[in-house]
Amino acid sequence: MAGVARKNLRKVSFEPDNVEVIVPEGTNLLETAIKAGVRISASCGGAGVCGTCKVRVQKGEVETKRTPKLSEEEFNRGTRQACQSRVLTDLVIYVPVESRLEKAVLNREAKEASEVLAGGWRFTPPLRKYYVELSPPTLEDNISDLSRVLRELKRQYLLRDMTVDFDVVKNLAKVVREGGWKVTVTTLVTAVKPSTQEKRRPRVIRVEPGDTRDKHYVLAFDIGTTTVWGQVLDLNRGKIIATSVEFNGQISYGQDVISRIAYSQKHGLKKLQKAVIDTVNTVIGEVLAKSKVKAADISHLCIAGNTTMMQLLLGLDPRYIRLAPYTPVANMVPPVKAKSLGINLAEHVYLFSFPSPSSYVGGDIVSGVVGSGMHQRHELTLFVDIGTNGEMVIGNSEWMVTASCSAGPAFEGGGIKHGMVATDGAIDDFTVDPKTLEPKIGTINNSRPKGICGSGLIKIIAGLFLAGVVEPNGKFRHGLNPDRVREGTDGYEYVLARAGETQTGGDIVITEVDIDNLIRAKAAIYAGCQTLVKSVGSSVADIERVIIAGAFGRHLDIESAITIGLFPDIDRRRYAYIGNGSLLGARLVSFSTDLLDDARKVARMMTNFELSENTDFMNNYVAAMFLPHTNYADFPEVARKLGRGVRV
Amino acid sequence: MAGVARKNLRKVSFEPDNVEVIVPEGTNLLETAIKAGVRISASCGGAGVCGTCKVRVQKGEVETKRTPKLSEEEFNRGTRQACQSRVLTDLVIYVPVESRLEKAVLNREAKEASEVLAGGWRFTPPLRKYYVELSPPTLEDNISDLSRVLRELKRQYLLRDMTVDFDVVKNLAKVVREGGWKVTVTTLVTAVKPSTQEKRRPRVIRVEPGDTRDKHYVLAFDIGTTTVWGQVLDLNRGKIIATSVEFNGQISYGQDVISRIAYSQKHGLKKLQKAVIDTVNTVIGEVLAKSKVKAADISHLCIAGNTTMMQLLLGLDPRYIRLAPYTPVANMVPPVKAKSLGINLAEHVYLFSFPSPSSYVGGDIVSGVVGSGMHQRHELTLFVDIGTNGEMVIGNSEWMVTASCSAGPAFEGGGIKHGMVATDGAIDDFTVDPKTLEPKIGTINNSRPKGICGSGLIKIIAGLFLAGVVEPNGKFRHGLNPDRVREGTDGYEYVLARAGETQTGGDIVITEVDIDNLIRAKAAIYAGCQTLVKSVGSSVADIERVIIAGAFGRHLDIESAITIGLFPDIDRRRYAYIGNGSLLGARLVSFSTDLLDDARKVARMMTNFELSENTDFMNNYVAAMFLPHTNYADFPEVARKLGRGVRV
Repeated sequence: MAGVARKNLRKVSFEPDNVEVIVPEGTNLLETAIKAGVRISASCGGAGVCGTCKVRVQKGEVETKRTPKLSEEEFNRGTRQACQSRVLTDLVIYVPVESRLEKAVLNREAKEASEVLAGGWRFTPPLRKYYVELSPPTLEDNISDLSRVLRELKRQYLLRDMTVDFDVVKNLAKVVREGGWKVTVTTLVTAVKPSTQEKRRPRVIRVEPGDTRDKHYVLAFDIGTTTVWGQVLDLNRGKIIATSVEFNGQISYGQDVISRIAYSQKHGLKKLQKAVIDTVNTVIGEVLAKSKVKAADISHLCIAGNTTMMQLLLGLDPRYIRLAPYTPVANMVPPVKAKSLGINLAEHVYLFSFPSPSSYVGGDIVSGVVGSGMHQRHELTLFVDIGTNGEMVIGNSEWMVTASCSAGPAFEGGGIKHGMVATDGAIDDFTVDPKTLEPKIGTINNSRPKGICGSGLIKIIAGLFLAGVVEPNGKFRHGLNPDRVREGTDGYEYVLARAGETQTGGDIVITEVDIDNLIRAKAAIYAGCQTLVKSVGSSVADIERVIIAGAFGRHLDIESAITIGLFPDIDRRRYAYIGNGSLLGARLVSFSTDLLDDARKVARMMTNFELSENTDFMNNYVAAMFLPHTNYADFPEVARKLGRGVRV
Repeated sequence: MAGVARKNLRKVSFEPDNVEVIVPEGTNLLETAIKAGVRISASCGGAGVCGTCKVRVQKGEVETKRTPKLSEEEFNRGTRQACQSRVLTDLVIYVPVESRLEKAVLNREAKEASEVLAGGWRFTPPLRKYYVELSPPTLEDNISDLSRVLRELKRQYLLRDMTVDFDVVKNLAKVVREGGWKVTVTTLVTAVKPSTQEKRRPRVIRVEPGDTRDKHYVLAFDIGTTTVWGQVLDLNRGKIIATSVEFNGQISYGQDVISRIAYSQKHGLKKLQKAVIDTVNTVIGEVLAKSKVKAADISHLCIAGNTTMMQLLLGLDPRYIRLAPYTPVANMVPPVKAKSLGINLAEHVYLFSFPSPSSYVGGDIVSGVVGSGMHQRHELTLFVDIGTNGEMVIGNSEWMVTASCSAGPAFEGGGIKHGMVATDGAIDDFTVDPKTLEPKIGTINNSRPKGICGSGLIKIIAGLFLAGVVEPNGKFRHGLNPDRVREGTDGYEYVLARAGETQTGGDIVITEVDIDNLIRAKAAIYAGCQTLVKSVGSSVADIERVIIAGAFGRHLDIESAITIGLFPDIDRRRYAYIGNGSLLGARLVSFSTDLLDDARKVARMMTNFELSENTDFMNNYVAAMFLPHTNYADFPEVARKLGRGVRV
């Protein structure tokens, strides 16, 4: 139309990727990079305040706004914030390594997680979006719509031998025409065996009209026995844009996997499947609302979970997980359309399940191991994931053995009189005055106390034990401050908070039954680790690195955990805590096909060791039923604190 | 139980395959071969009357019944009919080449079809069944059920890198246990590009408890605009065990593809899709009833059809087939679960659609070309498929060009006053006494006449033309035998059968309108062939082989077809007729993965030539609107018969 000047087009080349893109003059440089498929870190999402998207203009001119994030020296050298710059002329842009997304994602994760994370991977999500402009058909060139799309993908991106979902074909005629012969193609690759150099065959899962590359989101999920975590990831920016958590709707059908399996045998699998699918749908609803992403713009769903949770989610009968010799249905469950399971996502979305090595060491552990980078390092590493079950992995980049044992729900606040999960008002910090025995408690969000979470429980019992309030056998010493240590309805108890101070309006106490439950739980984990380490001819002292994953929130106090005898009494600097390893791994494989391959490799590397009928484990378990242990020699530092000579 | 002696087990080895199998003493030798996966021809299904299953006993003893099919000399040399023999001792059996199924299938097909069929292929169906006995899990070996199955397939059959359907995993735990750790695995392979030596990755589509190798059936279908043909194939015996045909339920929505597309645009695709799916289900019901095969034992469904029929079947909007530049949605439609389309087959059954090169040259033509072996030979071949549309292919093993034109429904009995498809009571043979003009007619099944089928129509009009009853312009000569040539309600007509002789109770006649319809139809086909041959710089006389496929049943008379000017007037020995080429190809690719690859190759080789806006074609069409043609020089033999000098 008259009066609307057509904008000049500019060619922008990005180094060192050697990628070119044509954009109208005036286009934002960060958007130009995204369009070209060049991944630049932009933590603040382009607001100009983080300074992570610095690039160097090697040729040509940009219009830029200088912010305090750019020093004068940098500015003079040609460095610019991509998000603050607009294209004026043809350009050659150099993206320095520190601005590249791979590094940025890694650093951010690493800072959060004590630098024990997987490294060396490229930012190459298994999901990709390709924008193609097709030449409209003519009588001389009237190949099919699908052939036209595939021809252009081959010509422009060298993609060949792709497989195509039937669903893609269903609306293709409409889509290509609606988009005026401009479409965006979403492809998915699956893991390959790294050894065989097997060729990756991308699968076309969706074709959309027009250019939709700016909407490129996937979901990462951890399905735990107790909680279900979900995240929306933005694959253009390599970041989490929303996280949410809900209790697993199956909770009312049993607290641990065994009781869930028993329930499914009695009342049918469907009910449990529906319960967890409902929870997944709730979490999806929450993260979509938080992130303002539409369900239709989600391209993929990656889920890690223990073997039972995954089988229940997928509708696979879990009964043989519970019966000796404990076989799961499949280690690698083939991808399945999320919608076919009742998950509220579009028809094109596949559910990827982490491979699970065995019935009691599942995809959540593989996910955690991959996320922690344990499979990349030579150090002898002990990986422990603590939830309702305790799972352990020992090994390194060459080999791994695994085992699991039932810890009960104590670490997640279950079976504890005033136990709760680690949310608002949960007591998660505790010290006790050694003289008065008066407590000082801390709660999540500093709210008025409501109950005790797993990490709080460990801290409380460690504190009371060191103060001499609790004996090594888990019983309260009698004849102490009667306001705090008193006989309650369930035997002796310690008063943590009085009715007037709490949200519940009643006293919050810790009982001997609670302590007994915790001791059983920690004894199982410790005995499991001990037995597994011994099974490979090593001892606890040989362990060079301990990685703790699990349901404790961010509040686990390693010192307290060692004090009660949950973890080995070795140099504290060897410990690292990664939080929810399952969710971490699900996120990282969504960012990197390298790590997706690693997940497959790790699952195959793992050799499982059955503790359930192992007499060594039973002996170790009985010996661990004291605070910290019957054998003080294994806990020298705790013994020192107690002022206790070591019995040899 | 006491009194029931356990049968002795015997080891039977088959040469030259070098396969062994263990069976109880007394087992039938043909069944033993099937169990061992050795494919022996047995045309009569084991009745002992065909003599195709001869084998030589090299070691050991069989109990046998000698039939007249075995000469004394053969018998003395150790030759036996496998179906008439029982295993007595351990055996070594030699299967001579003439008894091997590959050869047998080929010969049978070839005999039926004038030896123009595809050759040189191996009997290697894309569907295979593997029987595996698994070691039950133990605490030391408690890998997943799926891994156990895959491990055994690798160990026993060297199958690796398989993909597995999610549906297989769903009931796997139950299946392996129900079968006592003995299962039968069904795998499917798809076509690969022969040039790239791409690796074939079999897909596990089904796991059944126990040994079900004896039930190994697939379906081959041809979806035509007018009729839908279906067959049950027994992959153990390499033979058709039932065939059925029904009118395409879409007929009431229009007689040709264009009217069907128009209807789908007006009233929605769903209705047309449902109509053809219902027909497919009816045909499936019929062939299953005839063959006594259960639906659950069908492993695969291979369908060939024209592009519009396939898009309607699959629910793909066909509107752009009708609009210039005539693009189909996809040339290669990805496999889709038959059940998801509403087809009454088990969940594991995939629908394979023949690749279609263009909107008007579809998978039915690719199927016919592959079935005819045209792609394997050097001779310049013209392939013509005649139905509602006429499709032509010209080329050889190096190149192929294709074209299509609308012929209308006349060749299938449509638009003809007393037209009908080629079933019971259809007039398919005709001679006329040149003096009395009295007819002699033949009908299908020798039933009382009911109507006229396409091949009958051609014979009648050719006969009447040569007898001088019909003029070159398609009009009746007046003043002839008034009992036979009379004025009817639709103008002049010829009486083929009188009311008293027919099933319908009325006269069966042929009218000038019928003749006009046939002339239009034959003119389109002839003009199409002429134009296409010329487009590659050749002329009709250069054609070394003409392959006719189509809806005529087995009764097309080539001489009559040439007489009316449907086909070129060249040496009759160059002609071959393959009947329903679409169904033939669907059957052959079900038998051979080699031919499946060929189908993909052929579809890619074909270059389409649009006749719709071609002026050459229009001129040729107008010139062909006479019997046999305006240009007698192109029909020298017909001119000679007419006693007519050739106008040059």
